[in-house]
Amino acid sequence: MSDLANRSTQELSELREQMLREYEALRARGLRLDMTRGKPSPEQLDLSMAMLSLAGNGDITTESGEDARNYGGSSQGLPEARALFANALGAPIDQILVGNNSSLALMHDCIVFALLKGVPGGRASWSEEKPISFLCPVPGYDRHFAICEEYGIQMIPVPLTGEGPDMDVVERLVADPSVKGMWCVPQYSNPTGEIYSDEAVRRLGAMRSGASDFRLFWDNAYAVHHLTDESRKVANIFDACAAGGYPDRPFVFASTSKVTFGGAGLGFFASSPANMRWFVARMSRRTIGPDKLNQLRHVRFLRDSDGVRKLMDQHRALLLPKFDAVAGALATRLDGTGAARWTHPQGGYFITLDMMLGSARRVVELAKEIGLALTPAGATHPLGQDPDDRTLRIAPTNPPLTEVRLAAQAIALCVLLAATEALLTNREMTDAPHSQVSAGRRMKATA
Amino acid sequence: MSDLANRSTQELSELREQMLREYEALRARGLRLDMTRGKPSPEQLDLSMAMLSLAGNGDITTESGEDARNYGGSSQGLPEARALFANALGAPIDQILVGNNSSLALMHDCIVFALLKGVPGGRASWSEEKPISFLCPVPGYDRHFAICEEYGIQMIPVPLTGEGPDMDVVERLVADPSVKGMWCVPQYSNPTGEIYSDEAVRRLGAMRSGASDFRLFWDNAYAVHHLTDESRKVANIFDACAAGGYPDRPFVFASTSKVTFGGAGLGFFASSPANMRWFVARMSRRTIGPDKLNQLRHVRFLRDSDGVRKLMDQHRALLLPKFDAVAGALATRLDGTGAARWTHPQGGYFITLDMMLGSARRVVELAKEIGLALTPAGATHPLGQDPDDRTLRIAPTNPPLTEVRLAAQAIALCVLLAATEALLTNREMTDAPHSQVSAGRRMKATA
Repeated sequence: MSDLANRSTQELSELREQMLREYEALRARGLRLDMTRGKPSPEQLDLSMAMLSLAGNGDITTESGEDARNYGGSSQGLPEARALFANALGAPIDQILVGNNSSLALMHDCIVFALLKGVPGGRASWSEEKPISFLCPVPGYDRHFAICEEYGIQMIPVPLTGEGPDMDVVERLVADPSVKGMWCVPQYSNPTGEIYSDEAVRRLGAMRSGASDFRLFWDNAYAVHHLTDESRKVANIFDACAAGGYPDRPFVFASTSKVTFGGAGLGFFASSPANMRWFVARMSRRTIGPDKLNQLRHVRFLRDSDGVRKLMDQHRALLLPKFDAVAGALATRLDGTGAARWTHPQGGYFITLDMMLGSARRVVELAKEIGLALTPAGATHPLGQDPDDRTLRIAPTNPPLTEVRLAAQAIALCVLLAATEALLTNREMTDAPHSQVSAGRRMKATA
Repeated sequence: MSDLANRSTQELSELREQMLREYEALRARGLRLDMTRGKPSPEQLDLSMAMLSLAGNGDITTESGEDARNYGGSSQGLPEARALFANALGAPIDQILVGNNSSLALMHDCIVFALLKGVPGGRASWSEEKPISFLCPVPGYDRHFAICEEYGIQMIPVPLTGEGPDMDVVERLVADPSVKGMWCVPQYSNPTGEIYSDEAVRRLGAMRSGASDFRLFWDNAYAVHHLTDESRKVANIFDACAAGGYPDRPFVFASTSKVTFGGAGLGFFASSPANMRWFVARMSRRTIGPDKLNQLRHVRFLRDSDGVRKLMDQHRALLLPKFDAVAGALATRLDGTGAARWTHPQGGYFITLDMMLGSARRVVELAKEIGLALTPAGATHPLGQDPDDRTLRIAPTNPPLTEVRLAAQAIALCVLLAATEALLTNREMTDAPHSQVSAGRRMKATA
C-alpha cells in the first residue's frame, strides 16, 4: 500500500469509505477483546500449576531449618528463594530481598521510606527537600508514573533512543540536585521492548548527579522474558555504578509475576549492602516478614535459575505466536502507508505502536466502539499525557491467539481509519480554513 | 508462703541461698527455652495443613469468576475472603479489605499514607502537622510502638485499668489537637489480656478529639482467640463511633496469623466507606493487588465464620494447658509472697507478670543466664522504657507443654530470687547508706 499522504483526496475518501464498511462489519460481530494489560494467559499460568500442590505434603522446612508456616526468620526472605533470581538480578544473595507478590510494592516502599526517612548518603528525607523530581524515559510504565504523581514527585520526560534513554539529555538533567531518581526498565523496556546499551548503562553508572542521594529505580521486570534464542541481557548495573564510584546508586527490582503467577509470585529487591541494611531496617518495622510458604513453593518448583530458564522457554512458546500475529497483522495492513510504525521486541510483554501525531486517542476510541479495549492513550507518559498523542501500548499476551490476531487486525484498521480521517480533515482545513470541523478530531499536522 | 517483705533479713538470706541452689541446678541442665514471642506452636500450625493442598487441584476460580492466579480484581481482595472475618471485624464486606500476610503492614501503611497524604477529614498531611503524637495504653505491643518511633510520632502512655484504658486520662489527652491516633488492642489485649468494657468503647467513640482527623488504631488481633467457653467479644467500635458522631474514627485490623499460619495468613483492614475509598486509592498505587490464591486457600479451608470458630476451638484445646501450666507454676511459688502479680487471660496470647519495682530487667537477665529467653523488659512500653521496670510479657504458646511448665517454674524462681535480692539490697542500703552496692542492682523502693 502506498503512503497515504501521497494520495489524492478522492483516493483517501474512497479508502475511508472502504475502512468504514469493514469497521461496521467488525462492530456487527459484537467483539469483546481486551488488550489493555500485560497479563499472562491462562495457558501460561497452567505451566506453574504443579507449584500449588507443593508444601502441602508437609514439606515446610526451609534450608536453615525454620518452619516456613510460622513467624520468624529474616525480613530479607529465604536465602534459597533469593538465589532463584541472583543471576537475573546480578547480585549476591546477601544483597537481595525477596518479599511478597509485588515488586511494584517494593518500589513504592523505597520511595515512601525515602520520603519519610531519607536514603543512605542523603542529607535529609526527600519530603524535606521537596520539590523533587524523577527522570522518566518515555514511553514508560504507567504504574511507575502513578507513584510519582501520588507523592507529588515531578516527572521529567526523557526520550528513549531504541537503545535506552538519550544519555546526553539524562546527564544534563541529572545535574540538578532536585532530581532524586530515575525510572528505568532496562531490558525489554515497557513498552518499547528496547534494551539499554552497554554504553547507556556505563554512563548511567558514571554520570555525576546533583543530588548525593540520587537513585536509579532499575525495574528489571523482564530480565528472563525472552522471545528469541538470543536471550539478551542488559549490562550489570551494580558493576557500572561501582565502576562509576556510585555503589549505592541502583535500586534493582524483579519479580516472578510473569514467571509463575501474576497475582501470587515473588517480588525481589537488590541493592548495595548499605541500601539493603537501610531497607531491611525500614521493612522490619512494617511487617514481621514475608510469606515464606510462597517462597518455599517457588524454590521447590523452580529449583534454580536453570529451572527458571526452562519455564521461560515454555512461556516463550506460548507468547511468540501472539507477538508474530500482531506483527503480521500490522504489516499486512500498514506497511508502506506511513500511518504507523511499531516495535519488534526480542522479549518482554509489549509492542509499541507509534502513529500519526494526534491519532492515539482516536484509535482507542474507535477500538472501544467495536468492543476492543486498548490501554488508554497517554498511559505511557507521565500524568497520562502524551503531548504528541501518538503512542499506544499493545499487550498481546493474555487473550487467546485467535483473539490476538483479530484484535491486531482491528487495531490496524482503526489506525488506518484514524489516519485517513486525519489527513482528510487536514486537507479540509487547508482548503477551507474557516469550515466547521467535526468534534473530536485532532488538527495537528502529520509528521 | 508468707509475704517476703515481712520476713527477717536472716530468713531472706536463707531463702536467697536456697533459690541460688535451685538456680544453679537449673543452669546445670543447659536449658534452651524461648518464651519471647507470641508464635503459634507447630501443633497449632498442623491444624491448617490441609489448607496447603488447596487450589492445587485446579480450583482457582473466585466467586466472581476471576482466575485467582492472575493479576486483576479489586485491591480490596476477594469478597468471599473478606466475609470470613466480617463477623469478627463487625463490618460489612464493602468496608473490609483483605491483603497479604501482615495486618501490621496494613497499620504501618495507614500511618505512612496519613503522614504523606493525610486522612479524610484532615486539613493537611500528618507530616505537615508535626509534631504529632499517639496515645499508647501501656503495657502494649512493642511493634505498634516501633512504628511510631520509626516515624517520629511521640507516644503518650495511658494507664490500663483491667477494663481498657483509663478513659478520664484519654479524654483529657485527646483534646490536644496534636494527638492524631491511639493504639488499642481491645480484646484480650497484648499483653494484659483485658477486654475493653462497653463503657470504655462508648467513650472512645464519643469523646471529643482536638484533631478533626484523629484515628483509633483498633488492632483486634485476638478477636476469635478465646481461652474460655465465654467467648467474650468487645463492643462494636463502628457502632460506638457512629453513635458518637465520628464514623470515620476507627481503623480496624485483624488477621489469621494465629488462626492459620503465622507467616502466611491474611491481614484485614475495616473502616468507614470514606476511609476505605481513601485506603484503596492509596493501596492501588502501591500494588496491583494482594495474593488472591492465598485468600482462596483460606476461603476453601475455613469456609465461613463458623469454620473459623471450630478451628479456634482446636487451637484453644492446645493452648489452654499451657496457660494453665504457667498460672499453676506461678501460683505454687509466688502466691502470698508479694513478689509478683499476674493476669489470668480469657483469651489472646500472653500473660502479663508485674513484679517488684525495678526487677523486670534483672529477671530477664537471670533467666537468660540459665538458657531461658524472655521478651526484653521494657518491650511493653513506648521506646522500650518501662519507668517502673516491673512488667514482663510471658508468651507461652510456642514451646511444647513440658517446656512451658519448666519455663514457668524457672520464671517464678527468677522472680523470687530477684525479689529477695532487691529486698536484701534495700535493707543493706537502709542499714548502711554509704555501703557499696553491687553493680547492676536496682535501688528503687519496693511498692
